[in-house]
Amino acid sequence: MENTLIPDPLIIAKRGSFAFGGAVVGRPDGHTLHGDHGYAQYNIPVGPKKHPLVFWHGLSQSAKTWETTPDGREGFDDIFLRRGFSVYLIDQPRRGRAAQGTIGTMIPDASSEELLPDAFYFNAFRLGTWAPPEAPQYFPNVSFPSDRRSLEQFLRQVVPNTGLEGFDALTRELQSNAASALFDEIGPAVLVTHSNGGQYGWRTAMKNGRVAAIVSYEPSTFAFPESDPPAAITYPPEAIENEPDLVSDEQFLGLTKMPIQIVFGDNIRGDRGYEPYVERAEQFIAAINARGGDAEVLHLPEAGLVGNTHFPFADSNNLQVADLLSAWLARKCLDH
Amino acid sequence: MENTLIPDPLIIAKRGSFAFGGAVVGRPDGHTLHGDHGYAQYNIPVGPKKHPLVFWHGLSQSAKTWETTPDGREGFDDIFLRRGFSVYLIDQPRRGRAAQGTIGTMIPDASSEELLPDAFYFNAFRLGTWAPPEAPQYFPNVSFPSDRRSLEQFLRQVVPNTGLEGFDALTRELQSNAASALFDEIGPAVLVTHSNGGQYGWRTAMKNGRVAAIVSYEPSTFAFPESDPPAAITYPPEAIENEPDLVSDEQFLGLTKMPIQIVFGDNIRGDRGYEPYVERAEQFIAAINARGGDAEVLHLPEAGLVGNTHFPFADSNNLQVADLLSAWLARKCLDH
Repeated sequence: MENTLIPDPLIIAKRGSFAFGGAVVGRPDGHTLHGDHGYAQYNIPVGPKKHPLVFWHGLSQSAKTWETTPDGREGFDDIFLRRGFSVYLIDQPRRGRAAQGTIGTMIPDASSEELLPDAFYFNAFRLGTWAPPEAPQYFPNVSFPSDRRSLEQFLRQVVPNTGLEGFDALTRELQSNAASALFDEIGPAVLVTHSNGGQYGWRTAMKNGRVAAIVSYEPSTFAFPESDPPAAITYPPEAIENEPDLVSDEQFLGLTKMPIQIVFGDNIRGDRGYEPYVERAEQFIAAINARGGDAEVLHLPEAGLVGNTHFPFADSNNLQVADLLSAWLARKCLDH
Repeated sequence: MENTLIPDPLIIAKRGSFAFGGAVVGRPDGHTLHGDHGYAQYNIPVGPKKHPLVFWHGLSQSAKTWETTPDGREGFDDIFLRRGFSVYLIDQPRRGRAAQGTIGTMIPDASSEELLPDAFYFNAFRLGTWAPPEAPQYFPNVSFPSDRRSLEQFLRQVVPNTGLEGFDALTRELQSNAASALFDEIGPAVLVTHSNGGQYGWRTAMKNGRVAAIVSYEPSTFAFPESDPPAAITYPPEAIENEPDLVSDEQFLGLTKMPIQIVFGDNIRGDRGYEPYVERAEQFIAAINARGGDAEVLHLPEAGLVGNTHFPFADSNNLQVADLLSAWLARKCLDH
């Protein structure tokens, strides 16, 4: 650790962990099995602000996403605890400490081509370009340190699914039902989602009014009203095509009840995989605001931040990214 | 939460998480994949005692084992942090947040008989007797609350393996190599293992002198010197037969270099599955002490504690169990 300043101690009134939501499966022989719950760890400061922050990771990740950064600095977990928020980190159903699902799955061998290799994550998460057997090339401006340990820590954050994780309605229902049970338990809170978790966040907010706001870092899939689907988007061959999540018009109105901010990092324009998601985000925001909602997009480069990856909250400049979140929460009267 | 007393805030100088150990697998196409690492989360109090405590979970569990108890009270994580120890909780390789392994596996469907049902854990972990479709029957003296939520939280702690977990030498090597890397990183510390984690703890201590002591709650498998294997034990039909882990005589001597305490709970005599493990533990302790080591067994009922399950550190009387650990650490000069 290279901190020259020793930070003040963290003062925590209460912390802990618990399971939320989930199913109980019965077998013909009378046996039961618990699964499909989520896992939450929380830290509550002394005199917490009114609205906790609930952090939801993305694809191939766990709550670790929000903890110590790959280069050993404080993540959003610590940063927002220090700023007086109660912080809840979750492992979503069928992931990490909530890996006990109700449906089986096959986890491939690392030598098989079915398992996503390091270079996939390096490229998709926009650290730079890596075409093995060549060495990885970082983007010249990337806000990620180039030492070997940081990259290794980053790659070891990857966690497999232990059950389907898809872009299908069934998975979205399962995920958002569990998260809705969490909000029932903890009360009104701000939901902060990342990437693939974004789609589950929209669904959670549509079914539970306790979602007081959503901030979503680089979501890839968006909800739209079924009577008014968005215009088609031309996806480049490199991009994964994400179909809009069509919901009833009434459901969609749920997203007009709370402020929403979507945040994108840097090096997106040159990254053909992400540009369509930005375009979809603009359509999503337009659909919400046309119905009286309050949604906006924040491009970090336009706010003066440089080189952010797909994980802005863990990048070298994550304190500045946190400042932008704090400022937005203040504007929405959610920081008192 | 039913605490009538609000506990003092926790004051934490530093906390965080990181990956330790692990492998990098290369594919013929030049791609690499990281896996088989462990995951550690740590909390360091202000002015910590010299030796951190490293907690290692058992079968079908994660670091959650040591966090909030099923009935919402503080686990050993908080209890020993309050007592001034730096506390490290791990998810072992191929489990929880360290689930990314290097070998594939099949996770069965909950409706299949291959997945262990609730009643298996209820019985094996000695909460009582459950023979579906009958309702679960708690042991009359059990130190576990009988409300539905506590049992549900307990059952939702279960996490599947995402790679072999066995009683084989290869798994023990993989697990102890990772843990040894953790001790290399953090320095001398006390290792506290549970159940199936016990066998990995012996192996870790034999290969890394930084393991300053071992406390093992209800381990099931024990190391023995290959030139002096233990006398055969008669296993009842209900028990899983655990072969001794035979190591070289020189390796075994590693276990004479640090104090070792093995702790067993209650309702073992009537539980035919656990009695053989107690017998093996006595053989193990005799083998260590005959070679100049310092090993002992603690039966909680003999210390006046009643009704402890396979998870004494999370039972209703876990503060008293913690007191016994504190007292032992003090006797071994490891609490300063």
